Amino acid sequence: MSRHTERIGIQLADRSYDILVGAGLLSHGPSFEGLSSASHAVIVSNPAVARLYAQRLRSLLLERYPNVLMIELRDGETFKDWTSLNQIFETLLVAGCDRKTVLFALGGGVVGDVAGFAAACYMRGVPFVQIPTTLLAQVDSAVGGKTAINHPLGKNMIGAFYQPLRVIADLDTLDTLPDRELSAGLAEMIKYGPIADDAFLDWIEANLDALWARDKTALAYAVKRSCEIKAWVVGNDERESGLRAILNFGHTFGHAIEAGLGYGSWLHGEAVGCGMVMAADLSRRLGLIDIAYVERLTRLIERAKLPIRGPALGADRYLELMRIDKKSEGGEMRFVVIEAPGRASVRPAPDAMVRDVIAAHTA
Amino acid sequence: MSRHTERIGIQLADRSYDILVGAGLLSHGPSFEGLSSASHAVIVSNPAVARLYAQRLRSLLLERYPNVLMIELRDGETFKDWTSLNQIFETLLVAGCDRKTVLFALGGGVVGDVAGFAAACYMRGVPFVQIPTTLLAQVDSAVGGKTAINHPLGKNMIGAFYQPLRVIADLDTLDTLPDRELSAGLAEMIKYGPIADDAFLDWIEANLDALWARDKTALAYAVKRSCEIKAWVVGNDERESGLRAILNFGHTFGHAIEAGLGYGSWLHGEAVGCGMVMAADLSRRLGLIDIAYVERLTRLIERAKLPIRGPALGADRYLELMRIDKKSEGGEMRFVVIEAPGRASVRPAPDAMVRDVIAAHTA
Repeated sequence: MSRHTERIGIQLADRSYDILVGAGLLSHGPSFEGLSSASHAVIVSNPAVARLYAQRLRSLLLERYPNVLMIELRDGETFKDWTSLNQIFETLLVAGCDRKTVLFALGGGVVGDVAGFAAACYMRGVPFVQIPTTLLAQVDSAVGGKTAINHPLGKNMIGAFYQPLRVIADLDTLDTLPDRELSAGLAEMIKYGPIADDAFLDWIEANLDALWARDKTALAYAVKRSCEIKAWVVGNDERESGLRAILNFGHTFGHAIEAGLGYGSWLHGEAVGCGMVMAADLSRRLGLIDIAYVERLTRLIERAKLPIRGPALGADRYLELMRIDKKSEGGEMRFVVIEAPGRASVRPAPDAMVRDVIAAHTA
Repeated sequence: MSRHTERIGIQLADRSYDILVGAGLLSHGPSFEGLSSASHAVIVSNPAVARLYAQRLRSLLLERYPNVLMIELRDGETFKDWTSLNQIFETLLVAGCDRKTVLFALGGGVVGDVAGFAAACYMRGVPFVQIPTTLLAQVDSAVGGKTAINHPLGKNMIGAFYQPLRVIADLDTLDTLPDRELSAGLAEMIKYGPIADDAFLDWIEANLDALWARDKTALAYAVKRSCEIKAWVVGNDERESGLRAILNFGHTFGHAIEAGLGYGSWLHGEAVGCGMVMAADLSRRLGLIDIAYVERLTRLIERAKLPIRGPALGADRYLELMRIDKKSEGGEMRFVVIEAPGRASVRPAPDAMVRDVIAAHTA
């Protein structure tokens, strides 16, 4: 393993696992040491990522598994659906994959979510490994065991809590990441500041240029710190009965933007970036934080080249889309709000106030 | 709760739950005491069962839940598929059901498996209650947390281990059960004798006529004892890494029969009945048990009006269908065999011996 590999432990009793963060992990056999053995390993990826990294991964896996299959899912949030899931099931069944088969999710959030859910369901559960190749997946979606597909009536509505055997975050894969996707990842990284660690927000403000330059030392710290915070939250509330919901800061507004424009129009991270501006403003209107903090957060989101104004869907449509959010209970909308810099909670908010927030932050 | 309610505890740490067995449970509000509250309860059933019991259940649930929805799935193993699963998801999403929604699976194995898997996946998991109305579901499929749908390429290939909040087995529902389905349930009940409790096999032999007459005292003991044995096995191996596989005695041959004839041609329990004859003969050929025990088991299966000869699919086809079994590892078939009366294990067996078994027991 490379000298600079960071290892973060996720503590979940018999489902505990390690996150490895470092440059060059996909070129080093030791990254895969200690994984369970099987007759088949299956790489699930998409065409763009597979072209860059699948052969390298395949040859490392062939040192450990007699058969290595490749599955390429169509790329993008619109294909995070039953059809892609079934493409995985069919390939596994046709190849006679048994329930020791190890799935490797090589790609961003869509690949990780679909492959992870396939692993959760195939023969009632086979082991899987997350190899996130986007910043968003490395700091957020590959960590914590949430897997899902979208339903035509709602995003991430069908899924499972299912933990991987390991997460392998190779920072070198970020070299080929388009700028727009780097931005999207920064949104989920920035999120950890207001909800859990105000000092990390300071650090991101000071190091944003280095992150933009894809400096490996800066990225290593940022990914590691993000994973640590997420690990702490997930370790305390794996199945999102309470605390874990704070990770959805900005997501209620963000999901409404994504759903309202049609999935794939804005990237998830872009919608979350804008959603955080709205959720911060809601927190201010609830009397929790001052306007200076909202402006500070807004400025950083803007510097990360994320949108800070939402599309003009109309407040009614926003509210309609937000009511289907998984945090809703008995039809009452609930929002992740900032209680104080570095501390969040989940609260209801008056419809009129939510409408004011939407009016103030849409084009 | 009725005076004669039996309560069997399934011990699975934070997923522990009770099985209630008794006559009249569906007419007594206390059967539902202590379940989690929610704005929506959803009854998942099929037309035949719903016609008999859904209104009664609905009025009891309306005492506890503001909204009670009804979903009727098409009946039969052929509809244990993605379409039925999605019918549940759509109804829940359209009605705005949140993740506290409680699903009630009212029916046999198909309803329980599909509704249970829907509960496992909807918003990554909502609580559910099993209300088995067939003998097979009461003694087997509703207990232990296995949920699944079929894939065109294999039975029960897509699913989850997901435990219910409670199992409510009302023996009165067996009064309306067709004889053929009573037989099918007897197959899974008889299974517990050879794999775990030879004295229970004696008891079934002595009480088969009372069970056929649907005598409530005999049924109560038989369902309770079956659940106890299953609870013991599942409590020791929830996710089927070892011991739990013995519950599949007769199922490897049985699944081949079901798949070979097309699902729905034979009932699952019928295929298991015949499969147990084959698996017992395989155990004998492996030198584990004597022919007298095979004959004893065969006679009881026949008295339970179950088939003891399989369809003439040809040995090649049987072997091909058995290789996709979830117990297979690296292409090697494995069988649940009887080590001695009341004790089972999982073993490989030579292809030639398996072919002999098939030749000896097919029409």
